[in-house]
Amino acid sequence: MQLQRTQTDLVADADKKAAMQAYIDGLNNGDLEAVVALFAEDARIEDPVGSTQIIEGRQAIRAFYQQSISMDLKLRLVAPIRGSHGNEAAMAFEVEIHGMQPATVIRVIDIMTFNADGSIRTMQAYWSPEDALPLQKS
Amino acid sequence: MQLQRTQTDLVADADKKAAMQAYIDGLNNGDLEAVVALFAEDARIEDPVGSTQIIEGRQAIRAFYQQSISMDLKLRLVAPIRGSHGNEAAMAFEVEIHGMQPATVIRVIDIMTFNADGSIRTMQAYWSPEDALPLQKS
Repeated sequence: MQLQRTQTDLVADADKKAAMQAYIDGLNNGDLEAVVALFAEDARIEDPVGSTQIIEGRQAIRAFYQQSISMDLKLRLVAPIRGSHGNEAAMAFEVEIHGMQPATVIRVIDIMTFNADGSIRTMQAYWSPEDALPLQKS
Repeated sequence: MQLQRTQTDLVADADKKAAMQAYIDGLNNGDLEAVVALFAEDARIEDPVGSTQIIEGRQAIRAFYQQSISMDLKLRLVAPIRGSHGNEAAMAFEVEIHGMQPATVIRVIDIMTFNADGSIRTMQAYWSPEDALPLQKS
């Protein structure tokens, strides 16, 4: 039997974008369980891309976002979320980290891939040390 | 002998970002050779991600961008280019395609990976049919 992507495996563009918006909202609301529930049991996170640290599986993902939420994050999309012609989507955002000393803003682009059931299979966060800046208080 | 990334293989963040800005500028200027010269001989393009069409090698890449430039493109970054902790970078932009009927704008995020010499090894463009909209004339 050959494994092949079928139309029915495709996650709708709107569903991928809704999941990514729910990810943003969940982090902004400090709702750890809402964020974790978006991920597949065996999901894999690379944040930042190019680092050696890979976070794999629900337990490790929960610990990662628990730590993140404890840093008092505020995420803001800088443009509409982009889809793809497959089970991938992408978004550009800024994340303010108020729990850092000094408070910091990081410019990020996330790529996510999805399983057929709409759960997040992988998340990759693109940012460099140069993309992290002291937060300007307004 | 084991292949391992060393510090000397790393392309500087500023160099990756300069190459991506040169890509934007080259397309806006209709400068095909400037765009093609940014890519490695064996570079690989997936545009859009999730399609079955893969463009591989300089000759195919030149044909791809020749076609693109003939469509009278205007690209505009919507946020600063993001780097990574490795040889990857990412950018969110809009591309106006004035040569389409009707004129169209597509919201895109590109991921590029780089060789140690700073040439582009891969480009992946994330956009869905829903990210293509009729261009509003101002």
